[in-house]
Amino acid sequence: MKKRKMLIDGLQYCNWSKEIFEDMNASGITAVHVTICYHENFPETIKNIIFWRRCFEKYSDLIIPGDNVSDIIRAHDEGRTAIILGFQNCSAIEGDIGLIEIFHKLGVRFMQLSYNNQSLLCAGCYEETDAGLTRMGREVIREMNRLGMIIDMSHSGERSTLQAIQTSERPIAISHANPYEWHPAQRNKSNAVLKELSEAGGMIGFSIYPHHMHQGSKCTLDDFCGMIAKTVDLMGVDRIGFGSDLCQNQPDSIVEWMRVGRWSYDKADFLRQNDQATFPKQPPWFQTNRDFHNILRGLRDIGFSETEVNKISGENWLNFFRETFNDQ
Amino acid sequence: MKKRKMLIDGLQYCNWSKEIFEDMNASGITAVHVTICYHENFPETIKNIIFWRRCFEKYSDLIIPGDNVSDIIRAHDEGRTAIILGFQNCSAIEGDIGLIEIFHKLGVRFMQLSYNNQSLLCAGCYEETDAGLTRMGREVIREMNRLGMIIDMSHSGERSTLQAIQTSERPIAISHANPYEWHPAQRNKSNAVLKELSEAGGMIGFSIYPHHMHQGSKCTLDDFCGMIAKTVDLMGVDRIGFGSDLCQNQPDSIVEWMRVGRWSYDKADFLRQNDQATFPKQPPWFQTNRDFHNILRGLRDIGFSETEVNKISGENWLNFFRETFNDQ
Repeated sequence: MKKRKMLIDGLQYCNWSKEIFEDMNASGITAVHVTICYHENFPETIKNIIFWRRCFEKYSDLIIPGDNVSDIIRAHDEGRTAIILGFQNCSAIEGDIGLIEIFHKLGVRFMQLSYNNQSLLCAGCYEETDAGLTRMGREVIREMNRLGMIIDMSHSGERSTLQAIQTSERPIAISHANPYEWHPAQRNKSNAVLKELSEAGGMIGFSIYPHHMHQGSKCTLDDFCGMIAKTVDLMGVDRIGFGSDLCQNQPDSIVEWMRVGRWSYDKADFLRQNDQATFPKQPPWFQTNRDFHNILRGLRDIGFSETEVNKISGENWLNFFRETFNDQ
Repeated sequence: MKKRKMLIDGLQYCNWSKEIFEDMNASGITAVHVTICYHENFPETIKNIIFWRRCFEKYSDLIIPGDNVSDIIRAHDEGRTAIILGFQNCSAIEGDIGLIEIFHKLGVRFMQLSYNNQSLLCAGCYEETDAGLTRMGREVIREMNRLGMIIDMSHSGERSTLQAIQTSERPIAISHANPYEWHPAQRNKSNAVLKELSEAGGMIGFSIYPHHMHQGSKCTLDDFCGMIAKTVDLMGVDRIGFGSDLCQNQPDSIVEWMRVGRWSYDKADFLRQNDQATFPKQPPWFQTNRDFHNILRGLRDIGFSETEVNKISGENWLNFFRETFNDQ
């Protein structure tokens, strides 16, 4: 029997269902980091964990909790998909550093220090000024390092991101973003960040969310894979993977939640009045979890060896988890 | 019968009891802004409001809710003390702009945009870098202006404070602090801030917390009143009042809560190991709520007229509330 490829997605936020879990299995996805917090507070995030505990119970033939490296290897061996829980924001810990360990015990393995806006820990990428890590931010990094929770700077500002790379004793992640040089969205990352990230042993997961890609929904597979090849020149082939940011089956109402949460009345009105409260169209080569094979083909077509494809598709993330999780 | 003086304290955080309410009445205090949030989240702050609703019920002969200007005038006429609820932090609203109106309906009339540390709204005075108002901070100022909730920058950074003065459509407050020039504590305010504050119609309440005073616990009444006279040269006599920061009967354990909340393990350890988790000794001329008459005497002794003493003791705060509260 042919050995399954290690295939790991560094971030998804789908409207989870049996159908999507089946898609993931059919596509041979070994593990997915799933978002359970954008703007939720502590009790709301606990409710999201309860949702996942029920899913693990009901769909145990398809998914298992991905709490550590051995879970991911087990999912790989058994043909199931490991679900790694994570936050795109730190709102879930409110102002309480003690809640980080509570969430770690409950299986949370990623936390972004901020999401677009200023948080208690650092600036988001859409703030006018980025003052870097806050007093609490530095304490939280130390605590996440102790516990083995991954520091994710996908939606943080440049200065904050550089300081997090320098301050963290373990390598950090940018779970879902692309190089700014390829597509100058404020969410994408400068070469300076990507270089420092890789030199510190960190990972980037390449995003397939149209707003992060050159030519948006019209981005070609060739263009996307060319960007990956170019990033290898900067970061090497061991520090990159996928972080698709796939929002399969999410209704458009979720866009307003992600962008505005509860922090502004006017911003929500603006999105609605300007028809911006909708998801962009996915490119034809990546519509659902069943389409990963297209990207693997694209990587081969552009000249990556099978060994390199294996690294990008999942082995790099797995090795990174060995460095960043405590329990193996 | 001699008319009572209008006597308003811009901030206290006592260990509230019948005894203290009696002290306040005995001292002729018309109104006090009391802190009900340092690091509390929404449900914890609601519990603190419930505490006050019970006090209003049990001690209605001594205190009444100070929700608007007419309440304060009523307290003055009836010889009771109006209690104005306020936050020293924005943790109570979590990330939800809608909670500001909820708290306003419940009687909250002051909110600091940050407390020492970075908040979701702006920087605190102890952060290394102050990036100013955040995206959410600007939205919150607009909402507080709409509702008539006072923006208080006592514990915020300099840049954030200047931006708040400039951004707010209503005058703002520094409810409890002193001039940095008099005592260079990081919590005290520069002449630039005090000047802009007064020019925009804002108020400062002078603090009698030893850490904010020249020579700390040994600060003399004459020195304190001299500082007030000097500040009048900068701000005029209409923009100043008291904000004693009195923590009558609070146990030392509260110091750790105020300074560290739940944001750091190491900072709490440091305070305990270095015997810094204690309240400083109050100066002899201001130990409890019964000592306000000492300060009024000190102001007269240094040459303030009775008209000026009346302004400083309470009329300035009352006029400021007319500008900043919606309901009169």
